[in-house]
Amino acid sequence: MTSSVAIQGFAGSFHDVAARHYFGPATATAPCATFGEVVRRVADGTAGHGLMAIENSIAGSILPNYTLLRNAGLRVAGEVYLHIRQHLLVLPGQPLAAIREVHSHPMALLQCADFLGQHPWRLVETEDTALSARRIREGQLTGVAAVAGARAAELYDLEILTPDIHAEPKNYTRFLVLARPADTPEAARPDKASLCFHTAHAQGSLARVLVCIAEQGINLSKLQSCPQPGSTWHYSFHADLEFDDPARLDAALRAIEPLTENVQVLGRYRRGATH
Amino acid sequence: MTSSVAIQGFAGSFHDVAARHYFGPATATAPCATFGEVVRRVADGTAGHGLMAIENSIAGSILPNYTLLRNAGLRVAGEVYLHIRQHLLVLPGQPLAAIREVHSHPMALLQCADFLGQHPWRLVETEDTALSARRIREGQLTGVAAVAGARAAELYDLEILTPDIHAEPKNYTRFLVLARPADTPEAARPDKASLCFHTAHAQGSLARVLVCIAEQGINLSKLQSCPQPGSTWHYSFHADLEFDDPARLDAALRAIEPLTENVQVLGRYRRGATH
Repeated sequence: MTSSVAIQGFAGSFHDVAARHYFGPATATAPCATFGEVVRRVADGTAGHGLMAIENSIAGSILPNYTLLRNAGLRVAGEVYLHIRQHLLVLPGQPLAAIREVHSHPMALLQCADFLGQHPWRLVETEDTALSARRIREGQLTGVAAVAGARAAELYDLEILTPDIHAEPKNYTRFLVLARPADTPEAARPDKASLCFHTAHAQGSLARVLVCIAEQGINLSKLQSCPQPGSTWHYSFHADLEFDDPARLDAALRAIEPLTENVQVLGRYRRGATH
Repeated sequence: MTSSVAIQGFAGSFHDVAARHYFGPATATAPCATFGEVVRRVADGTAGHGLMAIENSIAGSILPNYTLLRNAGLRVAGEVYLHIRQHLLVLPGQPLAAIREVHSHPMALLQCADFLGQHPWRLVETEDTALSARRIREGQLTGVAAVAGARAAELYDLEILTPDIHAEPKNYTRFLVLARPADTPEAARPDKASLCFHTAHAQGSLARVLVCIAEQGINLSKLQSCPQPGSTWHYSFHADLEFDDPARLDAALRAIEPLTENVQVLGRYRRGATH
């Protein structure tokens, strides 16, 4: 197993920052253009772990990423939460009045639409926040700003001309740490688990499942119905469970077994910190 | 109340097609650049109704659209499901070998990534599938193809060079019909309702709510936990309920009232057809 961590985006992206919080500041991250590539690199062993955004406090779940994770047979080995702060970055010394264009990922531009809309700037969508910052430095681009995080400013020696230009201050992204099952030893004291399951068509079947979970004193921190591929508008579910005693989880899994189909435990891990 | 229907996108877009299925082929649609604009035009009365995508069978819910709908105080007056079929459109007579660039909305390009990836084409992201088709006609662009639906081909007189280039055949989008409360008479025989609610922090509170719903013989066709603005990682819920007798819905709403906070019925309407 190599020790590098596959991330979506480039050095200085939010995935890169989250990976360093989880694995430590000296972590070697392997940039990937897509979430699919992150998963492939973990599955084929060219990266030891992967880091993949799974939900955001404003936009909600990134459902296709659950499908990627399941189809590749990977496990959730941990999680990390990151407070997303977007800044306006320029070459040092560039004044606001010089800016004609702002480059960033479409999601970052959207998060800053209120601020950006107050200026007559041309907005240019790019693949990655950090890549936009890097291009300004490499091309010595005057008149161009990037929307990206503080780590990108530091890495590419850009100036934060206007900090915190995102509209919603409570913008948090949750990232999952992915690994191959063979590389995922059971966490010493897991206190969280991610599962997916289908319920029968019968009315009330989901209610019965949730009652079993509640009876074990387990907290349901997330419940998400998902369109089920090949069965349009027949939903399956993703659930995150928080517990103090892993034996409670085992008891709940036994209790819901006759009420569900295809229960998959995607991972048992430690609750993540927020940075 | 004007009779026009605000839609996201341009004439020939999937919103336009869905609006014509719901309101009839002679409907006057008012193109809007964003979902926010659709909601504003309905709220300020410059459009009689709005049509807004709310979920897709592959990508899941468009959560920010629930927020737009709630914040504007609009009602759900109906729904319509559309089978999304993406085609490769060109000026009549253009061969596949002449194509150098393919233009479309990023989501459409993504849905066709398998097909597009087999060709050495430059992919250009645009605001709208139908707009990409229109630009090919207006500019008489040779060497350029658009990814869009059959209605765009018809409207802008383009040839469907390769039909059905989307990877996942079961690709359905659900659209909500929006109206101001004053313009939304109670449906004659509603058999579906959309609601949102918060549950208390107590373990098992969601389970108790779902038991009340099941006890009325109501089918839960969708359940979605949502990040709650201003309360990071404390989820609220969106639920769609299907019932035969509206009195059952009223009974369920009375039963869940002491178990929930801020129950909002976003609309009572007739189940939508799939086109």
